[in-house]
Amino acid sequence: MKKVIFDVDTGIDDALAMAYALNSPELQVLGFTTCFGNVSVEEATRNTLAILELMEKSVPVYAGAAKPLVREPREGYAKRVHGEDGLGNVLDFNPTTKAEVMSAADFIIEQVKKLPHEITIIAVGPLTNLMLAIQKEPEIKSLIKEVVIMGGAVYVPGNKTPYAEANIITDPEAAEIVLSSGMPITLVGLDVTLQTLLPKSTLGKWRETNSVVAQFFANMTEFYMDFYESNYPGIGGCGLHDPLAVGVAIDSSFVETKTVNVRVITEGEEVGKTVPNLEVEPKVQVCTEVDADRFVQHFLERVIK
Amino acid sequence: MKKVIFDVDTGIDDALAMAYALNSPELQVLGFTTCFGNVSVEEATRNTLAILELMEKSVPVYAGAAKPLVREPREGYAKRVHGEDGLGNVLDFNPTTKAEVMSAADFIIEQVKKLPHEITIIAVGPLTNLMLAIQKEPEIKSLIKEVVIMGGAVYVPGNKTPYAEANIITDPEAAEIVLSSGMPITLVGLDVTLQTLLPKSTLGKWRETNSVVAQFFANMTEFYMDFYESNYPGIGGCGLHDPLAVGVAIDSSFVETKTVNVRVITEGEEVGKTVPNLEVEPKVQVCTEVDADRFVQHFLERVIK
Repeated sequence: MKKVIFDVDTGIDDALAMAYALNSPELQVLGFTTCFGNVSVEEATRNTLAILELMEKSVPVYAGAAKPLVREPREGYAKRVHGEDGLGNVLDFNPTTKAEVMSAADFIIEQVKKLPHEITIIAVGPLTNLMLAIQKEPEIKSLIKEVVIMGGAVYVPGNKTPYAEANIITDPEAAEIVLSSGMPITLVGLDVTLQTLLPKSTLGKWRETNSVVAQFFANMTEFYMDFYESNYPGIGGCGLHDPLAVGVAIDSSFVETKTVNVRVITEGEEVGKTVPNLEVEPKVQVCTEVDADRFVQHFLERVIK
Repeated sequence: MKKVIFDVDTGIDDALAMAYALNSPELQVLGFTTCFGNVSVEEATRNTLAILELMEKSVPVYAGAAKPLVREPREGYAKRVHGEDGLGNVLDFNPTTKAEVMSAADFIIEQVKKLPHEITIIAVGPLTNLMLAIQKEPEIKSLIKEVVIMGGAVYVPGNKTPYAEANIITDPEAAEIVLSSGMPITLVGLDVTLQTLLPKSTLGKWRETNSVVAQFFANMTEFYMDFYESNYPGIGGCGLHDPLAVGVAIDSSFVETKTVNVRVITEGEEVGKTVPNLEVEPKVQVCTEVDADRFVQHFLERVIK
């Protein structure tokens, strides 16, 4: 069982990824750390707590960064994609639980030191929290077992700009520090996540169950699918960006990878681009191909219990 | 054997697509029509004639549009991708042949009227020539057998902007007219072409042959691969955007398609985006999946004789 710290900026696909991870016996989630990104860090923390309450899971949540390392936080976040509340406007309760007092970065540092070479970090938002942790305590870089990141677009165009994927461009300086850190990283980028599609028919299947979680997820995911539909009419579903990072952490055979070093461009037109750096020892496993059908099937078997 | 009019803006992958088509017994290329795009129309015409001379093929060439329907032509074209000459800076002769007097659009009109329901148009540049032809003689729309277009990004982000693919954004108004024309169109966009890769090892194999064409193509393609390498270090090859349109014209089983109507956004931030229009009768076959390995193998067997 992999001991996991799961860093989220809980919008809709983060919530799906949370459920997938929490229902997977291969993973033991020690804690969630939250970051601004799809929503503000306060909203990400609330949403993470809410999903845990909904799923009746007790996992500590640690709030993290509210803004990028050097840039101004962007306004408006991704409300068109994830809804005003970040969960497709279906969040109808305030979680009664609270985040821990410790910060996200400090929790990462504490756990990695306590369990050296045992911690897997799954990060599906901007990489600000992980950057803060390794900046504060550089020795943990060699003590983290592995990092699985949803982010980047290495051999394909980006989605926020022709160069950059959304998570990376949200805090390119943090991403550059993390990706050049030498940690054993698997980068689950648009190269593979764009090939995943959760079909719309899933919603009906979830609604046929008695599960409160399934109803919530169906309504929440419908908002996300509506966004996909408005952007790509007829696509018939939504991408599973964040869940694929969980999938890869569970079973790396879902993807094929290429080992390279990756740097992040932090200035100019190409800001946020993830570029292989061939002059430096390869360290990052960049996902280049995915068995999308097998992954989606696996996700569906797990996400609703 | 399909009777083909092949519309090109001859840069490097156009040249590869030309050779693939000319060496394929399934296709009879009646003529090439040229358009601005990767290069100016004068350069596209010269390059098309040069490739034909190099291959010792006699096919008429008809020069077409020098600029978009309503926009100003862009400066500089795509010289960073295709070289100053559009052929990787390896063109060391001036073709002795000349383009025909007739314009590209008039040639399309003439042939379609002469051979109703028999002409396949393969178009791998901006869609200006085809737009001019159907604007001038709308009746040909119902007389063209099929149109195979390399262009667009229907269910994936674009490459020139997050919304738009290069061919379409170069003349979005022309693309909108063509895509909404009701003609039987197959759209070979980034959805599938980004999954193709011609491996760098190909160059060595071409250089080992005695073929003058192979040497030229190896040097030319090396420039294109160098561009890919500078953009995506370690990618180990180049995409086969234009050749895939030829592949699909030869054997449609290389791809899976979804039939929808597609409109082109011509204003605002999303200009050049190809968007399915679900309110109109489906007419365009949008390629959504590709058997890239089988296609690349087929291309390699054909491109050098």
